[in-house]
Amino acid sequence: MRAVVASGPGGPEVLSIAEFDAPKAGAGDVIVDVAATAVNRADLLQRAGSYPPPPGASEILGLECSGTIAELGEGVTGWEIGDQVCALLAGGGYAEQVAVPATQLMRLPEGIDLVTAGALPETACTVWSMVFDNGQLAPGESFLVHGGSSGIGTMAIQLAKAQGAKVFTTAGTAEKVLACQSLGADVAINYREQDFAEVIKAEQAADGRSGIDVILDTIGAKYLERNVNSLAQAGRIAVIGMQGGVVGELNLGALMTKRGTIYAAGLRARPAEQKAAIVAGTEAHVWPLIERGLVRPVVHAVLPLAEAAQAHRLVESSMHVGKVVLAVS
Amino acid sequence: MRAVVASGPGGPEVLSIAEFDAPKAGAGDVIVDVAATAVNRADLLQRAGSYPPPPGASEILGLECSGTIAELGEGVTGWEIGDQVCALLAGGGYAEQVAVPATQLMRLPEGIDLVTAGALPETACTVWSMVFDNGQLAPGESFLVHGGSSGIGTMAIQLAKAQGAKVFTTAGTAEKVLACQSLGADVAINYREQDFAEVIKAEQAADGRSGIDVILDTIGAKYLERNVNSLAQAGRIAVIGMQGGVVGELNLGALMTKRGTIYAAGLRARPAEQKAAIVAGTEAHVWPLIERGLVRPVVHAVLPLAEAAQAHRLVESSMHVGKVVLAVS
Repeated sequence: MRAVVASGPGGPEVLSIAEFDAPKAGAGDVIVDVAATAVNRADLLQRAGSYPPPPGASEILGLECSGTIAELGEGVTGWEIGDQVCALLAGGGYAEQVAVPATQLMRLPEGIDLVTAGALPETACTVWSMVFDNGQLAPGESFLVHGGSSGIGTMAIQLAKAQGAKVFTTAGTAEKVLACQSLGADVAINYREQDFAEVIKAEQAADGRSGIDVILDTIGAKYLERNVNSLAQAGRIAVIGMQGGVVGELNLGALMTKRGTIYAAGLRARPAEQKAAIVAGTEAHVWPLIERGLVRPVVHAVLPLAEAAQAHRLVESSMHVGKVVLAVS
Repeated sequence: MRAVVASGPGGPEVLSIAEFDAPKAGAGDVIVDVAATAVNRADLLQRAGSYPPPPGASEILGLECSGTIAELGEGVTGWEIGDQVCALLAGGGYAEQVAVPATQLMRLPEGIDLVTAGALPETACTVWSMVFDNGQLAPGESFLVHGGSSGIGTMAIQLAKAQGAKVFTTAGTAEKVLACQSLGADVAINYREQDFAEVIKAEQAADGRSGIDVILDTIGAKYLERNVNSLAQAGRIAVIGMQGGVVGELNLGALMTKRGTIYAAGLRARPAEQKAAIVAGTEAHVWPLIERGLVRPVVHAVLPLAEAAQAHRLVESSMHVGKVVLAVS
C-alpha cells in the first residue's frame, strides 16, 4: 500500500509517498481502508523530529482517519466489514490502510460525508475530553480558546456555544476574527492588536463576572501568566499545545487567589482504556450536536495524499481556517 | 470579652490581649463560647501584615475553634444551646466568643475532648477537601505531603494511610522523620539530607510505578519543578501554601507528559456554600476515621490564650510536631 513517511527530521520536503506492507489486524483491531486523514500540528512536530511516535505506534504519520472497515481482527464485535467509520489513531493515518483498535472507532455522524469525517476525531475527542469531560464546562459559564480559527479552535467555539457558554477566542487576522464570530464566538480578539487579558477583564467586569471559567490553550508558556490572570474563581486551564514555549513562570499565589486548576494532556500517549472512554464519550456527546446542525466540522481544504508536503506547508503558514484534510482514496 | 489582636504588622510581640464587644449572631449564625483555638501558618502571615482578613471577617485572629453554643441566631436549626462543637472560621477564634455561620459547625467526634477539637477543623477540612474531594486520592494510589510533622502533615499522613494509599512525606529533622513514620508514613525523607524527588523516583521505580498520584504541597515555587517531576501519570498537585516562594518555573511539557494537574486553593476566602459543603464532607468522611481510632489529632502543646505570642514563636520555630493549641476558657 502507499503511505507517507518523513525520510528524516526536516521541513515539509522530507515527506514522501512510498510502498509499505499492508498493516495486519491484531486481536481487537480492525483494518480500515482509509478514505481521508487530516493534518495536525503534532504531525508537523513529528516530521521535524520533536514528537516521536509512542512505543508500538506506526512510523507513518497521521493521528486520525475516516474510511471503510476491510477486515476484523480476532474478538472484534459490534462492527462489520464495509462499515463506514472514523477513528482516533496513534499513527499510520497517512496511508491507504491502517490497523486500529476497534475501541477507537466511531460511526459517522449522520449528514457527514466520509472525507469530511476524516477531520473529526482529533478535534472532537480533544475538545470533548479536555473542556467537557475534564474541564466540566457548564451552561452559563465562560470559555476561552486560543487560536479560534484552528481545527481545534473551530470545533471548540462551536461545542462551547452549543453548551450555552459565553465564548471568547483569540485569532491573528481580521479575517480569522470574522470566521470565529461566524462560528458563534461572542468575543473574538485580534491578539496582534489587543491584549487578550485586558479585553477579557473589561468584558467580564461589564458582565459582573470575575473571569473565564475554562481556558483551552495551545500556546503554553507565553500565555501562562495571562491565562491565570484571566481565570474566574474555580477556573480551569487545559493546556494541549505549547506553540509559545514550554517553560513559563507560574504565580502560585495568583492561582490560589482564583482557586484555579491547570492541567495538561495530549491524546496520543494515553492508555487504550482511556482512549476508548474518550472516543465513546465523544460519540455520545458530540455526534448528536453535529447531527442537529449545531456543530459542523470546518474544512479549509482537501488535498490528495500525495500532496502531504503542501498540506503541511499550509498548516505551518497558519493561513487556514479549520482543518486541512488529505484524501487518500 | 477578651480576644487577641495584632496591634500592627510585626513579630509575635505585636500580639496582645484586649477587651472587645461580644460578637452578635446574625441570621444563620451561632455564638460559640470558645474553649480552644489553634495556631495556623495563615495566622502568622496575617500578624505579619501579608494576609488581611477577607471582607466582612473579624480583625481578631483565629481560623478555627471548639466550644459550646451560647446563642442561636435567627433561622438556625439542628443545633441547640449547650451543644459542644468545633468550627471553621474566617477569623475571630482567638477570643472568648465568636460568631460563626451554623453551616460551618461540626459536632465533636466521639472520644475527642473539647480542647483537642479546637485543633481539628483547619487540618481536617483542608486535607479532606484538597486531597480527597478535589484530588480523589484512591486506595492503592501513592501520596506525598511536604512537611509531614506540621498540623496539616500529621493529619494528611493519617488520612491517606487510612485510605489505603502508600504515603511519602518530607521533614527537616531525624526526630520529625520518626514522628511521621510513627503516624504511618511509609517513606519519610529528611529533605536536608536527601533530594526528595530522587528518593521518590527510586522508591517508585522499585515498586514498578511512575510516580506519586497526589501531592499536597505547602512549599510552592521552590518545589514546583520537583513536584511535577515526581508525579505519576494523571497525578495531581494540590498547593495550599507557599513557604518556598510564590512564583516558580512550570515546565508545561513535563506536566503534559504526566497528564498532570496543578490546583491551588485555601479555605478562608471560599463562598459560604463551599465552606458548608467542605464542613459536611469532612464530618461525614473524616470523623468516622477518628472515631474508629485510625486517625488522631496530633497536639504538640496547649498554651493559654494569653500566651498567643509564645504559641506563634513556637510555630515559627518549626520545632513542633502537630498543632499548637490555645486554650481559651
